[in-house]
Amino acid sequence: MTFFPTLKINRMNHQYDTLRPVLWEDNCLSLLEQRLLPQQKTWLKFEKAPEVAKAIQDMVVRGAPAIGITAAYGVVLAARTAYAKSPLNWQEAIKSDIQQLAQARPTAVNLVWALERMQKCFATITGNPEAVLLEEAKRIQQEDIEANYRMGELGAGLLPNNCRVLTHCNAGALATGGYGTALGVIRSGYAAGKITHIYADETRPWLQGARLTAWELLHDKIPVTLIADSVAATLMRQQKIDWVIVGSDRITANGDIANKIGTYSVAVLARQHGIKLMVAAPTSTVDMNLTDGNQIIIEERSPNEVLMLNGQAIAPSHATAWNPAFDVTPAELVDVIVTEKGVVEQPNTERMATMMSLI
Amino acid sequence: MTFFPTLKINRMNHQYDTLRPVLWEDNCLSLLEQRLLPQQKTWLKFEKAPEVAKAIQDMVVRGAPAIGITAAYGVVLAARTAYAKSPLNWQEAIKSDIQQLAQARPTAVNLVWALERMQKCFATITGNPEAVLLEEAKRIQQEDIEANYRMGELGAGLLPNNCRVLTHCNAGALATGGYGTALGVIRSGYAAGKITHIYADETRPWLQGARLTAWELLHDKIPVTLIADSVAATLMRQQKIDWVIVGSDRITANGDIANKIGTYSVAVLARQHGIKLMVAAPTSTVDMNLTDGNQIIIEERSPNEVLMLNGQAIAPSHATAWNPAFDVTPAELVDVIVTEKGVVEQPNTERMATMMSLI
Repeated sequence: MTFFPTLKINRMNHQYDTLRPVLWEDNCLSLLEQRLLPQQKTWLKFEKAPEVAKAIQDMVVRGAPAIGITAAYGVVLAARTAYAKSPLNWQEAIKSDIQQLAQARPTAVNLVWALERMQKCFATITGNPEAVLLEEAKRIQQEDIEANYRMGELGAGLLPNNCRVLTHCNAGALATGGYGTALGVIRSGYAAGKITHIYADETRPWLQGARLTAWELLHDKIPVTLIADSVAATLMRQQKIDWVIVGSDRITANGDIANKIGTYSVAVLARQHGIKLMVAAPTSTVDMNLTDGNQIIIEERSPNEVLMLNGQAIAPSHATAWNPAFDVTPAELVDVIVTEKGVVEQPNTERMATMMSLI
Repeated sequence: MTFFPTLKINRMNHQYDTLRPVLWEDNCLSLLEQRLLPQQKTWLKFEKAPEVAKAIQDMVVRGAPAIGITAAYGVVLAARTAYAKSPLNWQEAIKSDIQQLAQARPTAVNLVWALERMQKCFATITGNPEAVLLEEAKRIQQEDIEANYRMGELGAGLLPNNCRVLTHCNAGALATGGYGTALGVIRSGYAAGKITHIYADETRPWLQGARLTAWELLHDKIPVTLIADSVAATLMRQQKIDWVIVGSDRITANGDIANKIGTYSVAVLARQHGIKLMVAAPTSTVDMNLTDGNQIIIEERSPNEVLMLNGQAIAPSHATAWNPAFDVTPAELVDVIVTEKGVVEQPNTERMATMMSLI
């Protein structure tokens, strides 16, 4: 593991410090309805944890860090309900809500990580738990944003000048507490004058690239060109990509990474074309309990995400589709993992352990 | 070049011998409106060559052999118009229509090939040219179908038992005179009991896989699973693909192949995973005038094909997209090219020339 010089960014005046997909407002949770972006900007309010679990499952909110933060606020709502019903025994009454939140989506470890962190507070609480838990949930979000800024500095420090970057899916402000992991590195790299252009995979079937990444980058006036996912290989062959930068939903102890379906494809192609692959993710995405990517549960979502779009069929009525939401990229295809704790080049079990042990 | 044992298929009673996207009916050209498939099965009638050129450009009909055949019938319509206007000088009057047909789409060489073949008839004609030209256009279509059956036999002969095949785009009956090139091999392989399952890339942005390939295979009761294009790599990693079989829009003298965007991506991934790649295309797709794929003009289509779907925006309103319709796969990534004349393993300039010189 090597530490690299970091770029200095004035965080307080940072022009990008705006978009947050998860907010605590008016004593309840607000989520930006990401299924309707970019055509509609709608916020949904949640007062009950089971509704939050459903919102995570249905991808009102998505992105590993963002669903972790959402689940943390979900625990606050669950505690409110449990305490109202059973003030002396709320820690028992809250369990089914927490279980529902934990089971909302299987692949991103941040969900379970955030729930465990919230539950660690339980022991310290006497009386009404809401204020203590809300403080912890807000702390999780704030730490995530700080981690993103730090990754932005570390990641941008690795990039050459005049860098053209390909990204897949959306690992932006919309996928996190704010700022973004991969898009955080891209924002910092662009602010530092190192990045000249972004190519964004549209990212079928859910079109996170077309709907979310393009929207975020256009909002920040960062030049972005959308491509169908299968165009990436041609751009690489034409030497129009210098780095691939993506996020992750779960990183195992050996540095294998689960990320949006299509990441493995991009990783193989990048390696074949001599292009480097950076994975930016906070340590809350690292699952040291799993030795390698074979142990990661890959969520399979409804075939209708492939067969339908905007409520219209785009395939024959009796067609079937296979729709894994994630894939696993083996560590050997990853050139560098960037977390808020540091940079791991050519990740393996030993280097990952060293990074994770840093304060 | 090696010849392989062929499978015997009863062509006359062939269960698949049905679908034709291009028909000559009621003294004019009928095209199956492929932009509306699979939701609507509509036939459009054409009486003027410029309308045929526009139909090719707008992808009412698509697929290299099919647009060649369509252009041939377009010449019949052009000759009718030219002869009515100028019976003694129709060969001069037809020129602008032929030029329009030739310029309708740039990448598939079959278009120019068919036009040149039609023009070769001109010298033999005295009086009204329509009957002679119609006979030639019908012969081009019939020969294409015969070529597809032959490729089906040759290609299927190369496959192992229990073969699981990935295909990209639509190189089926809808892309040809009938039966198909890549789907012709798949039909013959399935009929022979060698193929157990097809995975079809949905093929963004135009969704030929979802809309056309799935429709053709479901029609023929061949088991097919649709996938987002970026899922192919994961299927390969999971050892669920044995062969990749695709068509081509232009094959150069050295065996480089232009085909639907995404083919190059699949070719790189197949090679990395030890999976074989077969390209099935008639010799009308082979352009011996170009030494290699760098000389092929790659059509770039409207960004709206990426940014819109079914008339609805799927990206922010100011987003830009790059939309190349084809890519080039270098010959070294192709394991075998199958034409109606024979099989070229590990194609190169010498082997391609030997195959093309066969009667």
